[in-house]
Amino acid sequence: MRESGTGSEDDVLERIRRVFEQLRKQSGGSWSTAGSKFLSLGIGDDAALISGTPNYEMVLTCDWFLEGAHFLRNKHPADAVGWKCLARAVSDLAAMGAAPRCFLLSLALPRELTSSWLDAFLAGLRRAATRFGCSLAGGDTTERREVLINVTVVGEVRQGREVRRSGARPSDLIYVSGRLGEAELGLRLLRQQKRGLNMREPRLRRHLYPEPQLELGRWLGEKRLATAMMDLSDGLSSDLRRLCDASKVGAVITSDDLPTVGIAKVGRKTGIDPLKLALHGGDDYELLFTVSRNKTRQLPRSVGGVAITPIGEVIRKREVMITNGDGRSRVLKPRGWDPFRG
Amino acid sequence: MRESGTGSEDDVLERIRRVFEQLRKQSGGSWSTAGSKFLSLGIGDDAALISGTPNYEMVLTCDWFLEGAHFLRNKHPADAVGWKCLARAVSDLAAMGAAPRCFLLSLALPRELTSSWLDAFLAGLRRAATRFGCSLAGGDTTERREVLINVTVVGEVRQGREVRRSGARPSDLIYVSGRLGEAELGLRLLRQQKRGLNMREPRLRRHLYPEPQLELGRWLGEKRLATAMMDLSDGLSSDLRRLCDASKVGAVITSDDLPTVGIAKVGRKTGIDPLKLALHGGDDYELLFTVSRNKTRQLPRSVGGVAITPIGEVIRKREVMITNGDGRSRVLKPRGWDPFRG
Repeated sequence: MRESGTGSEDDVLERIRRVFEQLRKQSGGSWSTAGSKFLSLGIGDDAALISGTPNYEMVLTCDWFLEGAHFLRNKHPADAVGWKCLARAVSDLAAMGAAPRCFLLSLALPRELTSSWLDAFLAGLRRAATRFGCSLAGGDTTERREVLINVTVVGEVRQGREVRRSGARPSDLIYVSGRLGEAELGLRLLRQQKRGLNMREPRLRRHLYPEPQLELGRWLGEKRLATAMMDLSDGLSSDLRRLCDASKVGAVITSDDLPTVGIAKVGRKTGIDPLKLALHGGDDYELLFTVSRNKTRQLPRSVGGVAITPIGEVIRKREVMITNGDGRSRVLKPRGWDPFRG
Repeated sequence: MRESGTGSEDDVLERIRRVFEQLRKQSGGSWSTAGSKFLSLGIGDDAALISGTPNYEMVLTCDWFLEGAHFLRNKHPADAVGWKCLARAVSDLAAMGAAPRCFLLSLALPRELTSSWLDAFLAGLRRAATRFGCSLAGGDTTERREVLINVTVVGEVRQGREVRRSGARPSDLIYVSGRLGEAELGLRLLRQQKRGLNMREPRLRRHLYPEPQLELGRWLGEKRLATAMMDLSDGLSSDLRRLCDASKVGAVITSDDLPTVGIAKVGRKTGIDPLKLALHGGDDYELLFTVSRNKTRQLPRSVGGVAITPIGEVIRKREVMITNGDGRSRVLKPRGWDPFRG
């Protein structure tokens, strides 16, 4: 990340640096909030330097977070934008069973957002960085009419303990963490936003401040319980198909088993179907994983307070099906979020 | 990078994957084009897995490359956009003395560019990846009215051999590689573009297909010759100040010593001043570095065909000055590229 104190790009960088420098000092002077020596050179040079832990592999992922597509400037608080851009990238590491270590922030923003909006954004980002044990290592900033964000996260996983998408085998059971469709419900409430909608209202929280399932992901990897895993970002109907494609298998899930949002929470008069929310709603950042039948007894009902629910089974035939209570089944079409479908 | 074969986002990913899969096969089946085992899991999962080399540190950087700001869709060939988005990120690694290993591609593009434009873009990107020994490890794609690109590059440097910006000391000599201002000249030609301007015209090449100084950067680091180094991306007047700020020193450079573009190349009637091009022109991706006086004799005039030119001296007083032939000196104001200044 480039810096110094003359032009306006340098001012933006200085502001970012100051916020994260405080964090570094609070955490005992090390570049890493996790307290390790992982990050040996952070912001302020052409590139960052990191030293991995022996017998660990590094895990690398990046994510777009774009105004208009992933958030709306007039609906989403800047603080939530800051939190969520990091949380969603970190969720990809949770899905590998990895722990986050550091991240790069690429930020493009309009000149008029370089003071109070930027401050609130950085406050949310910093809270997320502290929560996930992840230091700012660098990035790139520029000016743009719209806010564009790209976050790269680097994490670590013990050699051989990573969980890939490709390991699901026929007869494995399929599980999800948490409750599906809550984030989508929050988004709908936000879109219909009436004056005075409280940003702390619990139904919005899951959409604005998602929590990646880091603890569960790592636990499943360390115990070698999951045969395949991914995070639910675009919606179960799209993501389950991706996991099946990567593993060259199919799946049957049971609609009655899905941990949906309660009808009371949705509101009876809204016409919103909790099952559709659970199948096609995006942004949940829960984990979808498969476990070999002979290991399912080792699975508790929850890990670290997060519920684990069996929702179906892996099958040999390469199709994704859903059955309802009366035993009839149909093909589950991928109707999750696809930016190119709009 | 997410994949499979149903929606349109998945189609874009499949196209990217196919292009780089070929490259992987050509290079002997390893994920890494450099032939090492660096990248153990590439495209197709939630995140990539990489294993560093013992006694090396990893080096991490990212760069925006945005339509309208960094390139123009109707002026820049898609192939050059593909080459340059990777070349400029790799240049940050050259500036640390590091070797690139793999990269993440974040790509947002309009639906109508998902076929022939994308193919040409990927061809340029692939050529650059092959040239720089850098494999595609993953990324993120989405739909957008304008082309947005963000590239993260991961490289390696032997422990203790990295060159930072902060090591310049008073009395060190200041050097630059290559010739300054050529890329800016190319940009001006492109902007005034007349019909039939040949994209292979040598004066355009430096702007469209920059070559990061990887060999020189590594040589300077390995030999411990450079006390500080950075790449020239925004222009000498801005970047020299950044190096001085990081090192808490100042500098005096001599205008007559600058390796400027010849007046014949600029064209006498254009009114373009080669000195201004060299001082404030961006996008050269040459290296700016400092060498302690007692080591300057070890520096050849060129490394791997790239000329090295002494242009001035580091001073204690924290100001950046320029002197001309008659010995008068003035403050060199940072007039390089700043996106927030426009």
